[in-house]
Amino acid sequence: MTKICSTSRITGCQFTLFPMSNDFVDIILSTLEEVDTSKVWKETDDVTTCIRGKSIHIFDVTKSIFLHAAKTGEHVAMSGTFSIGCPGDSSGDVYMEESDILMNESNSISMKQQAGCKFSLYPLGREDYMDKIYEQIDLSKNTGVKVSHSHYATRLDGDVNAIFSALQQSFDNVQKVVSHVTMTFTISANSPSNKD
Amino acid sequence: MTKICSTSRITGCQFTLFPMSNDFVDIILSTLEEVDTSKVWKETDDVTTCIRGKSIHIFDVTKSIFLHAAKTGEHVAMSGTFSIGCPGDSSGDVYMEESDILMNESNSISMKQQAGCKFSLYPLGREDYMDKIYEQIDLSKNTGVKVSHSHYATRLDGDVNAIFSALQQSFDNVQKVVSHVTMTFTISANSPSNKD
Repeated sequence: MTKICSTSRITGCQFTLFPMSNDFVDIILSTLEEVDTSKVWKETDDVTTCIRGKSIHIFDVTKSIFLHAAKTGEHVAMSGTFSIGCPGDSSGDVYMEESDILMNESNSISMKQQAGCKFSLYPLGREDYMDKIYEQIDLSKNTGVKVSHSHYATRLDGDVNAIFSALQQSFDNVQKVVSHVTMTFTISANSPSNKD
Repeated sequence: MTKICSTSRITGCQFTLFPMSNDFVDIILSTLEEVDTSKVWKETDDVTTCIRGKSIHIFDVTKSIFLHAAKTGEHVAMSGTFSIGCPGDSSGDVYMEESDILMNESNSISMKQQAGCKFSLYPLGREDYMDKIYEQIDLSKNTGVKVSHSHYATRLDGDVNAIFSALQQSFDNVQKVVSHVTMTFTISANSPSNKD
């Protein structure tokens, strides 16, 4: 059974950018300045930033934010949850009228950055949710990133552009068949643990 | 319908501690040294730390780690996902034999620290999952923390001990009636946004 959605298919991401540096304020502010967020609804407080709009722009903006922060060379991480089809989710609908032209992709694609990422998919309201999860774990193997299993999550290692591509592909494929889907992720770059 | 669990009720938390400081390595290492993790299974890599065992010890350890990191006075955050009843989850079962005596609570309870937290509950495999979520949003109002609604999450503000108490209460009550539950959280302390 595929549930019929009562609201538009607006996608959101609630995330936090974590620069492990005394300059964290500057890194966060300069990153937000460099990224074009004009096609998404955006709200930031002291705990998280929430952006909402078309799925393609949500992934475009989150990837760009992470890439700009990582290029400082500091150890940076980003943790958050993508969400689609949350009942009661309606504000920011006006951003669904934006065109499909990505505002940050041409810049992002030129940025080479290695990272490690763990993500988990949660298809909600379905008794067959584990099948949907397993299907996507298989699928993410075709995206040019190294895929491995870890407790409660799938791990992706590789280029940031490829990692976000795998995240987006998994999320999009599940949301086609499940109304309400969330996907948690933590991505980390320039960790001193990887510098040997 | 309450699903019957195929494995023991082992609880896990996959989390990352983020000190926004050049001293992040020292803060993470000294925190892990000060917290007693002897009653949980533990695995750390460059992206996350995963602990597993009895629910009470998982909350005891995560709270203590956050409190020890926050007492440095640096802006620190912690983001992660609690999980129970994940099908296929079996390693670390030996820690289910530990006694219920908490190893860090006596120390934690004396530590006063304000924080802001956002959390989301995901009861899986249930078509009535939204009812389970709404019940817990109501419930967390009785815990001495300020509760507010934000996009995709419930926000808790107050003392860290009270916040973790609310998180634990919500998680425990849902896992009594839903086999597989996850709960995401991001908690933040000493943010410069709050210093005015």
